[in-house]
Amino acid sequence: MKYSFANDYSEGCAAKVLDALIESNAVQTCGYGLDGYCEEARKTIQKLIKCEEADVHFLVGGTQTNLTVIAAALRPYEAVIAVDSGHIHVHETGAIEACGHKVIAVKGNDGKLEVEAVKSVLDVHIDEHMVKPKMLYISNATEIGTIYKKAELQALRQFCDQNDLYLFLDGARLGCALNAEGNDLCFADLAALCDVFYIGGTKNGALFGEAVVIVNEALKADFRYMIKQRGGMLAKGRLLGVQFLILLKDGLYAELAKHANETAQHLQKGMKELGCQLLLESPTNQVFAALSHEEAKRLSQSYTFNHWEKIDACCDYYRFVTSWATPIEAVDGLLEELKRIKEEIACGL
Amino acid sequence: MKYSFANDYSEGCAAKVLDALIESNAVQTCGYGLDGYCEEARKTIQKLIKCEEADVHFLVGGTQTNLTVIAAALRPYEAVIAVDSGHIHVHETGAIEACGHKVIAVKGNDGKLEVEAVKSVLDVHIDEHMVKPKMLYISNATEIGTIYKKAELQALRQFCDQNDLYLFLDGARLGCALNAEGNDLCFADLAALCDVFYIGGTKNGALFGEAVVIVNEALKADFRYMIKQRGGMLAKGRLLGVQFLILLKDGLYAELAKHANETAQHLQKGMKELGCQLLLESPTNQVFAALSHEEAKRLSQSYTFNHWEKIDACCDYYRFVTSWATPIEAVDGLLEELKRIKEEIACGL
Amino acid sequence: MKYSFANDYSEGCAAKVLDALIESNAVQTCGYGLDGYCEEARKTIQKLIKCEEADVHFLVGGTQTNLTVIAAALRPYEAVIAVDSGHIHVHETGAIEACGHKVIAVKGNDGKLEVEAVKSVLDVHIDEHMVKPKMLYISNATEIGTIYKKAELQALRQFCDQNDLYLFLDGARLGCALNAEGNDLCFADLAALCDVFYIGGTKNGALFGEAVVIVNEALKADFRYMIKQRGGMLAKGRLLGVQFLILLKDGLYAELAKHANETAQHLQKGMKELGCQLLLESPTNQVFAALSHEEAKRLSQSYTFNHWEKIDACCDYYRFVTSWATPIEAVDGLLEELKRIKEEIACGL
Amino acid sequence: MKYSFANDYSEGCAAKVLDALIESNAVQTCGYGLDGYCEEARKTIQKLIKCEEADVHFLVGGTQTNLTVIAAALRPYEAVIAVDSGHIHVHETGAIEACGHKVIAVKGNDGKLEVEAVKSVLDVHIDEHMVKPKMLYISNATEIGTIYKKAELQALRQFCDQNDLYLFLDGARLGCALNAEGNDLCFADLAALCDVFYIGGTKNGALFGEAVVIVNEALKADFRYMIKQRGGMLAKGRLLGVQFLILLKDGLYAELAKHANETAQHLQKGMKELGCQLLLESPTNQVFAALSHEEAKRLSQSYTFNHWEKIDACCDYYRFVTSWATPIEAVDGLLEELKRIKEEIACGL
Repeated sequence: MKYSFANDYSEGCAAKVLDALIESNAVQTCGYGLDGYCEEARKTIQKLIKCEEADVHFLVGGTQTNLTVIAAALRPYEAVIAVDSGHIHVHETGAIEACGHKVIAVKGNDGKLEVEAVKSVLDVHIDEHMVKPKMLYISNATEIGTIYKKAELQALRQFCDQNDLYLFLDGARLGCALNAEGNDLCFADLAALCDVFYIGGTKNGALFGEAVVIVNEALKADFRYMIKQRGGMLAKGRLLGVQFLILLKDGLYAELAKHANETAQHLQKGMKELGCQLLLESPTNQVFAALSHEEAKRLSQSYTFNHWEKIDACCDYYRFVTSWATPIEAVDGLLEELKRIKEEIACGL
Repeated sequence: MKYSFANDYSEGCAAKVLDALIESNAVQTCGYGLDGYCEEARKTIQKLIKCEEADVHFLVGGTQTNLTVIAAALRPYEAVIAVDSGHIHVHETGAIEACGHKVIAVKGNDGKLEVEAVKSVLDVHIDEHMVKPKMLYISNATEIGTIYKKAELQALRQFCDQNDLYLFLDGARLGCALNAEGNDLCFADLAALCDVFYIGGTKNGALFGEAVVIVNEALKADFRYMIKQRGGMLAKGRLLGVQFLILLKDGLYAELAKHANETAQHLQKGMKELGCQLLLESPTNQVFAALSHEEAKRLSQSYTFNHWEKIDACCDYYRFVTSWATPIEAVDGLLEELKRIKEEIACGL
Repeated sequence: MKYSFANDYSEGCAAKVLDALIESNAVQTCGYGLDGYCEEARKTIQKLIKCEEADVHFLVGGTQTNLTVIAAALRPYEAVIAVDSGHIHVHETGAIEACGHKVIAVKGNDGKLEVEAVKSVLDVHIDEHMVKPKMLYISNATEIGTIYKKAELQALRQFCDQNDLYLFLDGARLGCALNAEGNDLCFADLAALCDVFYIGGTKNGALFGEAVVIVNEALKADFRYMIKQRGGMLAKGRLLGVQFLILLKDGLYAELAKHANETAQHLQKGMKELGCQLLLESPTNQVFAALSHEEAKRLSQSYTFNHWEKIDACCDYYRFVTSWATPIEAVDGLLEELKRIKEEIACGL
Repeated sequence: MKYSFANDYSEGCAAKVLDALIESNAVQTCGYGLDGYCEEARKTIQKLIKCEEADVHFLVGGTQTNLTVIAAALRPYEAVIAVDSGHIHVHETGAIEACGHKVIAVKGNDGKLEVEAVKSVLDVHIDEHMVKPKMLYISNATEIGTIYKKAELQALRQFCDQNDLYLFLDGARLGCALNAEGNDLCFADLAALCDVFYIGGTKNGALFGEAVVIVNEALKADFRYMIKQRGGMLAKGRLLGVQFLILLKDGLYAELAKHANETAQHLQKGMKELGCQLLLESPTNQVFAALSHEEAKRLSQSYTFNHWEKIDACCDYYRFVTSWATPIEAVDGLLEELKRIKEEIACGL
């Protein structure tokens, strides 16, 4: 069996999460996320983000969460602005448009949305012949592994306040972002700076699950109607409560993310030392490194990883993802194998 | 703690399902339902339904499944016909309409859709000023616990063939239906008679999951695009494969459903013996029995169950649901308690 | 050529409307309803309804108007209640559902929506598993020619206030309603009692056009975005302004409606005298009278009219519609012809 | 009164069109475009395009037409590719997205869509995590006045055939395109090369109206349901038939377009001679010329025209539109005034 660096959802869940599911399995609860586990998980999150008035809802997956939040927030002619690498723009099969809303894509800077780009959109969307931009969508960590600094979020927040826009942060990989080297944001900052965001479980140790946090009062009303209508209301909602409770109450969430980051950093450092060019210095669990086609072909006999983007006739960027589940030995193994391949090729083998 | 007869999704999952999840937890697979577990589960289902050309897809929940199937099948102006107690008409927060389609509701007969009712709809929907009926939606077991006989499905099938309509069967409680006394349908019959149907896991021993079976070639194209767009594509799709595999490969699915039915029949028989009027003789895991308000109030101190519909000033119908997880002792306990309450009231206590 | 009583849009427009269009044809104006004609028409309407704060928008047709108003007013999971003969429920090809909203149909009383029926809907729509009723849709005149009395509208208004519902009045045939015998409503009452309504032009002397009046502040924001997005913003919007101005500034609208009503009343009285049973006593421009199939067949050789609904094996109800354009001689002609046919049949010819 | 070069829908309709409307005004017809005028207009178009099997439908406006055609053609997850200046991408308030479909914008070449750009989209849209490109949307004339050559359309057609894509041509300004200098396309070519296109009336002498021509059999079914559902079915549909009949049966359509082009060419030539830089050499009725802000300010005291895009701190491009209604004297007047202004400014006045 090849070891896979293809993504951060290749396994089931972290051991403690599994234990919590096993332990609660026989307990009877009411359905649809109104049970005690969810209630306790909600309170844990409210405490963590230092915002007891926030509404917290648990959904199963990221696309589902993005479409439900955006469909709930926007009137029919309102649009959401995202960078052109944004998940909702590229990789959700038009889920936002299927809810009736345009995604306005702008160039990002290292995958991040900047005030200038947003401003340029607002400058030309001036009357009823065009959609009305109303929400900014950002991901942290971004789709290319970079993270937002506090000052960057503050600048976006300020611009949103000045222009009556919502700020929505997709936290599918929030664990890795908040536990990355160089990060200066905490959960409470997100609650202070975003109108709505979510804490991703699927990619950080849960079987599945995303916890939506709604801070802005204007976005709270009837959100459960939206979840149900879009098919996101899990009958056994307690499964989400159980998982987020164990992940968040005693630091497991951070612990798992740190492991993912550390293994990725080890991999990134190792690949640099082997002479691989990086797309960018990623502080989180995704590494984007250049390989020649021949190197990639040989390496893929023992490891799974994804093609990312073209460089030139002989080299491309490839993506390697680690997770809470990645053994450091797997990283060492890959580095050794890559070293061997490079030497072989150098020797004309 | 009160014991709950509120629904059939009060617990986690059946023990063997949990074991299968534990056992596979550390295995690496690819995402989105393209893994080996899903592949094997698909083959198991194709064999079970005696239709190897059928497409099988795994989704998380019922509303999600209904909206995805219907949105995939219909053009924008096409409508789906359902009985007025149909789940998509009443209890899915307008999920079908949110995908743009009208649900045309007709009176049912014991919760079942009949050819005559469908015909009356077609008779008046004659031109482009009205929606075009294109699909029949039925549930087996129905929302009130009754089941379709083979002859009833055949009649609907014939009418569909004559009128170019799709027949879609919601199998959220299909296990209970196919294992009920009086049932004369099997999985293979469903594949032969429906264009598309689903095998419900959530209410029959899985943590979650519904297996969509698409038989009609016209409905197969690009269904995975629809799943993704509507937010139903689970990242760790293997969780669905693992569960359906264990449920269906060696008869566990039937075994769990039989237990649910038996406990319900025991309850129904007992309540009748205690003099409770029934809404109807249910052959499956939902029992609808009349209680006086006083009886209901006292019984609800020890048991959870739901109000169903009004009868008169002093009595209403209440719903009691059993499941794979219901101990026969819980039923006995409820019957004893109800007997005691009836005696107390009779004695003017 | 047969004379047509099929509907009230068989001709072009009233002579004075045509003159106004001819006269303004060469004038240059800006587009999209922001021109001086529209501005003056808006002011005329605000004065007429005694509500200068009302927003007035001009759209081309009825279905377009209904879908734009409803899509603008409702959040995705909110629904509109209508009688089961309501135009949006039956005759708009699912236009409201195509905007994502469920139409909840209830039985009407002579085509009119009553508080009791609305209340029964609210009683069962109690949580997020069902749509949330938020708007009442009524037509005046109704689809079967009846009209609302002031007390009836007031009762609906009061119920809406108590239950946080919007009241939307479809005025496709408002001219006939407000000028019917027995009517006690005026334009100003509509502005006082409805959240939003429209004044129909298409069926009362215009080439086309409906004037939407938005009274409720909550429904005003960005309505022009909605019109544009749904394809209802006419490039040469001035055509709507020109027509509504001539129709409404000096009483032409009432005059045309009165003519339609008078010719219909003449027809209804005449048919009754000839022994035809009526579906109901219509005070407006639609007459629903019973004919034997033989009578209908013979009459249809000289006149066009529509089948309405079945009575029994030999008789059905047929609909006859008059308009601002119907010559009284055409009515007399039909009555004479029907008299002759009845005599022939009586004589066994 | 200032003379307006703001757009090509500032007046009512061409004299002959008005005459036809007057003449037919009192005639009774059936509704919804099933009348004799529409029938004859349809036949006229089928003959003109040399394709008697084509379906022809009449709608009121351009956005309405675009959204109806696209919503009818695409399944929910399918997308349409357009240049980033495309009308559906920029100026229809998200009408296409409101029907559920993503518009994929690519860079154009002089406002035109090229095979290379389409190919680059297809190269990256490879699985169900992304929308599926299914239609190309082009405008002729384009939004910046340029026109497609036959070879360009043929190249797009060939690519569509190879990749199972639809080609949809927005002909809002088709008259000007087909009658421009350098044009080598005729109506019959459009029918041979497009799957669906429309012949614009609103901007070429009609009060309103666009004639949709559906050539591809796969797009024909139930199109009238789509028109009705999206609010585009005009009750007095005959108004569209009357107008297209007079426009197309004896060459009036071409005559009006030629006048628009000639006045625009006269204007463009004049402005060049006055030293104005052009955005591009437009062969149709839109001229894009550079003016200094001071020139623009002075000229706007006597003429209406629109700002188009920024050049630098002192100059911008402005758009001047002529039409069938523009007197050549108005163009001469503008040129003289601009000459005078330039001289004044040169003299430091």
